[in-house]
Amino acid sequence: MATSETDHVYKILELVGSSETSIEDAIKNAVSRAAKTVREMKWFEVVQTRGHIENGAVRHYQVTLRVGFTLDE
Amino acid sequence: MATSETDHVYKILELVGSSETSIEDAIKNAVSRAAKTVREMKWFEVVQTRGHIENGAVRHYQVTLRVGFTLDE
Amino acid sequence: MATSETDHVYKILELVGSSETSIEDAIKNAVSRAAKTVREMKWFEVVQTRGHIENGAVRHYQVTLRVGFTLDE
Amino acid sequence: MATSETDHVYKILELVGSSETSIEDAIKNAVSRAAKTVREMKWFEVVQTRGHIENGAVRHYQVTLRVGFTLDE
Amino acid sequence: MATSETDHVYKILELVGSSETSIEDAIKNAVSRAAKTVREMKWFEVVQTRGHIENGAVRHYQVTLRVGFTLDE
Amino acid sequence: MATSETDHVYKILELVGSSETSIEDAIKNAVSRAAKTVREMKWFEVVQTRGHIENGAVRHYQVTLRVGFTLDE
Amino acid sequence: MATSETDHVYKILELVGSSETSIEDAIKNAVSRAAKTVREMKWFEVVQTRGHIENGAVRHYQVTLRVGFTLDE
Amino acid sequence: MATSETDHVYKILELVGSSETSIEDAIKNAVSRAAKTVREMKWFEVVQTRGHIENGAVRHYQVTLRVGFTLDE
Amino acid sequence: MATSETDHVYKILELVGSSETSIEDAIKNAVSRAAKTVREMKWFEVVQTRGHIENGAVRHYQVTLRVGFTLDE
Amino acid sequence: MATSETDHVYKILELVGSSETSIEDAIKNAVSRAAKTVREMKWFEVVQTRGHIENGAVRHYQVTLRVGFTLDE
Amino acid sequence: MATSETDHVYKILELVGSSETSIEDAIKNAVSRAAKTVREMKWFEVVQTRGHIENGAVRHYQVTLRVGFTLDE
Amino acid sequence: MATSETDHVYKILELVGSSETSIEDAIKNAVSRAAKTVREMKWFEVVQTRGHIENGAVRHYQVTLRVGFTLDE
Repeated sequence: MATSETDHVYKILELVGSSETSIEDAIKNAVSRAAKTVREMKWFEVVQTRGHIENGAVRHYQVTLRVGFTLDE
Repeated sequence: MATSETDHVYKILELVGSSETSIEDAIKNAVSRAAKTVREMKWFEVVQTRGHIENGAVRHYQVTLRVGFTLDE
Repeated sequence: MATSETDHVYKILELVGSSETSIEDAIKNAVSRAAKTVREMKWFEVVQTRGHIENGAVRHYQVTLRVGFTLDE
Repeated sequence: MATSETDHVYKILELVGSSETSIEDAIKNAVSRAAKTVREMKWFEVVQTRGHIENGAVRHYQVTLRVGFTLDE
Repeated sequence: MATSETDHVYKILELVGSSETSIEDAIKNAVSRAAKTVREMKWFEVVQTRGHIENGAVRHYQVTLRVGFTLDE
Repeated sequence: MATSETDHVYKILELVGSSETSIEDAIKNAVSRAAKTVREMKWFEVVQTRGHIENGAVRHYQVTLRVGFTLDE
Repeated sequence: MATSETDHVYKILELVGSSETSIEDAIKNAVSRAAKTVREMKWFEVVQTRGHIENGAVRHYQVTLRVGFTLDE
Repeated sequence: MATSETDHVYKILELVGSSETSIEDAIKNAVSRAAKTVREMKWFEVVQTRGHIENGAVRHYQVTLRVGFTLDE
Repeated sequence: MATSETDHVYKILELVGSSETSIEDAIKNAVSRAAKTVREMKWFEVVQTRGHIENGAVRHYQVTLRVGFTLDE
Repeated sequence: MATSETDHVYKILELVGSSETSIEDAIKNAVSRAAKTVREMKWFEVVQTRGHIENGAVRHYQVTLRVGFTLDE
Repeated sequence: MATSETDHVYKILELVGSSETSIEDAIKNAVSRAAKTVREMKWFEVVQTRGHIENGAVRHYQVTLRVGFTLDE
Repeated sequence: MATSETDHVYKILELVGSSETSIEDAIKNAVSRAAKTVREMKWFEVVQTRGHIENGAVRHYQVTLRVGFTLDE
């Protein structure tokens, strides 16, 4: 955490990622999809974990994230 | 809810709509205004309902929404 | 609120009602559907107001309610 | 929002209004009743939406509001 | 999400599932146990994640879920 | 907390109990009323404490509880 | 709950009562003190329970209440 | 904190103060304005910090406070 | 509340106390146990009230407290 | 607050600003950075106040804001 | 849950664990690190799940836990 | 944020600092007092801002902080 970091302004983006496998995978899917257009993402925070059920079984996980990224100078 | 839907990543937008008529109308105003630039909106969630008062009467309703839309592949 | 009311035990049920028309209508739909099997419902509380969007317009409102009813003696 | 507005101190009042018709009507009833004694109300915020049920149907809506008004100089 | 879906009333059930393996496994255990008596479960939402510790190690995960299911017509 | 306990799935019930005497008594009234139909209740959590007032005095306490019970195998 | 009750507008007051004896006694102290100036109090809701400690022992309980009363017509 | 203090009943008032300078100044403005009519204020708690923006700069801070004062015997 | 008190720094401890008798007794048990090792405790705040149920009856109350104490100079 | 204002739709942006000096300065840094690309910002709301510590001293403040701005017609 | 358990006083500790692999692994890392100095840990509760992002990918998970342990008699 | 940082386990401490001058000063007082006994503090988060009032004026600010520090290996 160098001195220059203290001057950054972050913007927070809210995303929902999905996965049939795991909560971690849903997080990764959201982050990697956002990485196509947003540079300099620094952290995330899980806001909510949900999912869909089909035929009495978990069909997929759905995780809502707040993602912080640096606004370029 | 077809299988392919499970792969979507949603982005969440936060909006405030207003109406002199009703809470539902304030929601519709926010959604239709956003539809001018955002495609593929799927759901909304009411975060807060407020309003202004003038001369002892409700002047208009103001509803804060979180709106989820699919990020195009 | 007669004295005998103070002895009641209430049970709380959580429901989600939908309507294409209004928030009030979504509440009424949930309550009237529950009335088919639950007697003696006394009050409700709105927990969340959401909805779906199709083609850039609100398709229907979806209201989550907690409903209290008296357990029969 | 003129400059002088920035000097105001607001007081917040908490009210519950009722209506057999709609959530908006319950809000209006609370505001118009308060207008009999409180001048210079400026805004409201919905804190909770509840209601009573009788014979399996919604009997009336009950909306809790926080109302802000200017303290006269 | 066909038109007829908009008429459904959902009931929400609250469950706690456990697993010695993972959070996802605790969710699956709760859902599959509920599937024995509840038909037409559609979605879940994680309310709380807890667990027990024995001899300085995580013994099992315990996940509280709200589960929504369609009330049959 | 034997090993077999880790396999249980709990269901959570929400109840409101009343008492003219004390908060503890309102909790006991809700639990003993529920015990008539629900077996294997294990824990409770107080969600809200309210009450009614008559003639300037507390008439009775009303406590909302979440109660967890084991689903029989 | 007669029909005419549905027309009432309630105002909510926030109070803190204290007692060296019990939580219930702190609630009663707040309500009976308020009854000196406020007529037609109908219900209360506990917002927070705190207290002071002296010499390693509980000195008194301090309970914050929201109290609803009818605005006279 | 003398013994007699444990018998007090406090009333809580909610205020919004503003300042172009600082958050502390907005708090002071609300408290000194309330002091014109309310005696024996003892403590405050910040509920929300907001503000207005004009021409891309902070125009003023707006702080919502809960203020506790002793009800005179 | 003498002037010198304004310079104190408090540390907050979180405790859970139990009692088969009452909520107040569970609070006292937690405070008196902590008094064995922590000097200068000043206040507490109830965070959660729970309990266990055995054979359809409340077995004991369990109260989570935040306790503030002065750090010695 | 002229009539035409009631027709606006606001969008809410979430930002994190930093400052080594004060909370107010962190707010100003976030707002002035956002002003480079966002026109018509109207209000902000503080969501969280955090900071970093280095060598036992506060290194900088970090304030998370929700900022509302008018969507141009 | 034997009778003697009802007399315990628990203390709650708040920890943050990290892992590059999974949320469960971050929980385990926090618990096993704490086990070096804290005996008789009994349960944990997840308070927050966050993480860092580097080069558009999740770098590690960071889970905040509240951990309860028995105070030795 | 070097790789080795990802292995840290943090402990969170809760403190209340006071100041007659400003919110920032109350934060600094809490941090510098804690620095006497706690090494490697890394971040803080403001949980609550309160204060005392004397003779109709703010007497001092009181800020509750959660402070995270690294547990030494």
